[in-house]
Amino acid sequence: MSIEIHPVHGIPEVEPGDDLAMLIIAGLASSGVSLLDRDVVVVTHKVVSKAEGRIEPVADDRAYRELAEREARSILRRRGDLMIAQTAHGFICANAGVDRSNVADGYAILLPIDSDRSAHRLRMQLQQATGAEIAVIVTDTFGRPWRRGLVDVAIGVSGLPATIDLRGQPDAHGRTMNVTEIAIVDEIAAAADLAMGKADAIPVAVVRGLDLTGEGRATDLVRPPEEDMFR
Amino acid sequence: MSIEIHPVHGIPEVEPGDDLAMLIIAGLASSGVSLLDRDVVVVTHKVVSKAEGRIEPVADDRAYRELAEREARSILRRRGDLMIAQTAHGFICANAGVDRSNVADGYAILLPIDSDRSAHRLRMQLQQATGAEIAVIVTDTFGRPWRRGLVDVAIGVSGLPATIDLRGQPDAHGRTMNVTEIAIVDEIAAAADLAMGKADAIPVAVVRGLDLTGEGRATDLVRPPEEDMFR
Repeated sequence: MSIEIHPVHGIPEVEPGDDLAMLIIAGLASSGVSLLDRDVVVVTHKVVSKAEGRIEPVADDRAYRELAEREARSILRRRGDLMIAQTAHGFICANAGVDRSNVADGYAILLPIDSDRSAHRLRMQLQQATGAEIAVIVTDTFGRPWRRGLVDVAIGVSGLPATIDLRGQPDAHGRTMNVTEIAIVDEIAAAADLAMGKADAIPVAVVRGLDLTGEGRATDLVRPPEEDMFR
Repeated sequence: MSIEIHPVHGIPEVEPGDDLAMLIIAGLASSGVSLLDRDVVVVTHKVVSKAEGRIEPVADDRAYRELAEREARSILRRRGDLMIAQTAHGFICANAGVDRSNVADGYAILLPIDSDRSAHRLRMQLQQATGAEIAVIVTDTFGRPWRRGLVDVAIGVSGLPATIDLRGQPDAHGRTMNVTEIAIVDEIAAAADLAMGKADAIPVAVVRGLDLTGEGRATDLVRPPEEDMFR
């Protein structure tokens, strides 16, 4: 089946306390996109965090570093201003997800406290308002060891499995595949970013054409320490 | 702009020496997809490797391990049957990219010797046959440290920049972004996988709606050792 990814335009600057679901619904209307069953609404966490008030003033670089350290459950590496840390959710990323881009000068954006829950709440609100049975993914932009460049990944999921497990299913040769557990929500997050564009401030996109349902969470993607060879 | 991802059906089992470009063109025709300027044709390396004869018999697990070791430039970690290794191209992945799924029993598929060159050759052939100015990405399915599940990434690129560098461009707040170099070809690879499906044996998809040109290579994504904190 073909996949379509539609950017949602017209979402204004989000402020703490804003009703993000209503802003998205207005954006969908002005973008000419009506939600359908099985659509995946992909939302960058920046607007989720802003609506939830997860913004803090950071007077200077030192205050920013201290805030990032406060958000870190553990620190894996440091180099210069960059700290690779595990967040309370379990995600491993730069500066524990605390970011000073796309926010007013003198402020930093933190990750939602429970980004899976944020995704779920937004999904319930969007479903109630539109009647469509959808899924929601909240994303952030992560670096990777070994590969240059950032990619969007899922940090909050509702209405989808986090992975599709093809282990034990025969491949095209009838051979049982050993390990083919696809991180489908990360692939959807990356796909949605293609329609967003970083500097254009399009924080929401709709991915259409997948036929997935489930009740996974982004934290399902956190590799348990005993499986992880690179901490 | 909206993005569309079209699977290319009808590509038969590929054999060493096959003209992959011609098989893709036949598949496009039977899928009702005509290539347009700026389309990105995404091809899983399995069919590229097969057409290039990069298949070897592996009598047993030990022969497979030895083949993977031969393909490795260096080995980062081992655990049981899993070896995380750097390939001659510079990519870091499981078993140096040597894979026994989606190939006949008793055989393993290796990565193309020069996957950027494979992408370039395929692009030239598809352009010559169709007249469209396109890009080509050759993909593989990689695991990641820290995050469970596999995602498709680019291991060969022609006609696109590997990354989009937004460093120095103002974000929506007029604030200069520090590091926002997006690994756009990896995001395209992940997006294409959504239309392929692992067990369905759809090895090619067309990503439409991006407006990118450039002459990057997948090896541009290899993080230099001095930048890499996780070897």
